[in-house]
Amino acid sequence: MTASFPMNAGDGLYSYSKNSHLQKEVIDGVKETVRDTIIRKLDIKTILSSSNTIHITDLGCSVGPNTFSSMQHIVEALKDKYLYQNQVIDSTKSILEFQIFFNDQVTNDFNTLFQSLPVDRSYYASGVPGSFYDRLFPSRSIHFLHSSCAIHWLSKIPKELLDEKSPTWNKGLIHYVGASNVEIVNAYVAQFEKDMEMFFNARAEEIVPGGMMVLVTAFSGYGHFLGFFGSSLMDMVNEGKLDESLVDSFNLPLYFPSPQDMTKVVEKNGLFSIERMELINIKSKLVDEADAKTIMMSIRSSLEGVIINHFGSKIAEEACERAIFKSEEISELMQVNYEKPNILFVALKRK
Amino acid sequence: MTASFPMNAGDGLYSYSKNSHLQKEVIDGVKETVRDTIIRKLDIKTILSSSNTIHITDLGCSVGPNTFSSMQHIVEALKDKYLYQNQVIDSTKSILEFQIFFNDQVTNDFNTLFQSLPVDRSYYASGVPGSFYDRLFPSRSIHFLHSSCAIHWLSKIPKELLDEKSPTWNKGLIHYVGASNVEIVNAYVAQFEKDMEMFFNARAEEIVPGGMMVLVTAFSGYGHFLGFFGSSLMDMVNEGKLDESLVDSFNLPLYFPSPQDMTKVVEKNGLFSIERMELINIKSKLVDEADAKTIMMSIRSSLEGVIINHFGSKIAEEACERAIFKSEEISELMQVNYEKPNILFVALKRK
Repeated sequence: MTASFPMNAGDGLYSYSKNSHLQKEVIDGVKETVRDTIIRKLDIKTILSSSNTIHITDLGCSVGPNTFSSMQHIVEALKDKYLYQNQVIDSTKSILEFQIFFNDQVTNDFNTLFQSLPVDRSYYASGVPGSFYDRLFPSRSIHFLHSSCAIHWLSKIPKELLDEKSPTWNKGLIHYVGASNVEIVNAYVAQFEKDMEMFFNARAEEIVPGGMMVLVTAFSGYGHFLGFFGSSLMDMVNEGKLDESLVDSFNLPLYFPSPQDMTKVVEKNGLFSIERMELINIKSKLVDEADAKTIMMSIRSSLEGVIINHFGSKIAEEACERAIFKSEEISELMQVNYEKPNILFVALKRK
Repeated sequence: MTASFPMNAGDGLYSYSKNSHLQKEVIDGVKETVRDTIIRKLDIKTILSSSNTIHITDLGCSVGPNTFSSMQHIVEALKDKYLYQNQVIDSTKSILEFQIFFNDQVTNDFNTLFQSLPVDRSYYASGVPGSFYDRLFPSRSIHFLHSSCAIHWLSKIPKELLDEKSPTWNKGLIHYVGASNVEIVNAYVAQFEKDMEMFFNARAEEIVPGGMMVLVTAFSGYGHFLGFFGSSLMDMVNEGKLDESLVDSFNLPLYFPSPQDMTKVVEKNGLFSIERMELINIKSKLVDEADAKTIMMSIRSSLEGVIINHFGSKIAEEACERAIFKSEEISELMQVNYEKPNILFVALKRK
């Protein structure tokens, strides 16, 4: 059983659909890398065999518009690669069709997703509810898989963090970034490794031999931004508005893997080959102190659900509001991180 | 462009999910016929070719629970037929997997549908938003199609009914059942024929050769129940609460085909063979005056959206409440219709 942390639903002021600027920068920032990987590494003739329909899934798609942008881009790249392969070997073959499976947790707002599907899309759309740590699709039914800013969500909080007597009790913090005790980090790593084993085993059944998966996760610098939500909660503790044990027992279920972490879990699983892996620095257009709010609204739209789940909506709302207005410190952090890698890009192929 | 008339969303007092008793009786009433058709008429070896996954769709599935019941039943029948075929010819073949595409209008409440999916289901679930009068799936991707109480919804009101100067102006009524002018019926028939041509052309692309479709529609007796909503609206006109022209210009986009109607459209299209067609009398367990409310709540949950769309929610609510409380007349109609056919069952095979 995995926990469920959907992005904020609907299309209102704090919704993911209106606030996913950071996630958009990630998707735009890796577009050329995705395309290049498809053109250089994917063999469409092998994966398609007798059919002319390519099945694509976006795992953890949320509600749009980012997922529509990345899916359209992938469809274009696949068409181009197919034409390229086709001209060389078999120019009589008829044109491709695309079926896209938009996946997210069962509590995701699929109504908003479906109602905002682009009318001029060149694919057949469907929604698949469920955790990507379980099976989602029939055997050998997926040709290309994409997942951006999703698999850094763990299936659950490492249970060691919930024991007040243990060295992994994460006092005063809500995440491993900034934690002084290495055992806290280790608990997160262990959960990440367990989750990825489930993830790869499920995907190995579902992806056809030669099929590919592109995984994009935030890199560790992102964790420092999460700290503003933690310090806002601790500010409320210090003002007597909140009991500290509530903060101590709360930990964000997010792990930002390094290339070494990712290599380890892929190799241990053994069913996929690593076709490409790189740390990327996406230079944000959000650089001024005035942009701090935009960044924090973006993070809020993805974190608020899990914060509400632990603290209730009243405290969550105040903590989020407070975090957003720490704009001077946020702005400093943006500058410190500007030149550093902030994204891990991984392309795997089913053996 | 087709109009969109979803069933009532959510799981509240007037929701389809809490009020679809009549539709449940239909699904239960044809279960054995569906099973018998699969066992006798479907050749699973032909439709599957190299894959072991059967793709099923339920068109106009609404929000459950009825769709889950009919899909589970179809999966069981397909498994049994496969085992039967398999024992005879090829016992080494591995077991089947099932992927079900739950389809309804983009405005359908897919969130409720997904959140109520049975946890013990033996299939992979996905939702496909869109009108079944358009293409929904890639070419040759569907093996078995089911649609219950859905294709009797026309894609739109026949436009001839909107001309006040025409003999097809349906004065004082909201449907062709009960209309004295045959041109009104003809306008409905013409729209039905146009819609079914679009429907069959789209499905002919999507269903594999040898794949089957089971269509269940309400038969004309059902139309008389709709009359109670019309007479409630006219009661409100007579009490000066509503302008009559609003009622005159409103027509329910529902056509209940006869076997002759259905044969004509299938043969004109020419891409499917008729494997089975019969009128069925499903004896309702709802027989007492006390059950009249249950029946009318069930009809209300599917009609209210289209009534609100024309009259606004205040008038729609009052008209629906009034219709529900005509229990004596409703009860009489239930008795008159008790022995009559109330369902048209059709099974077609892609040539």
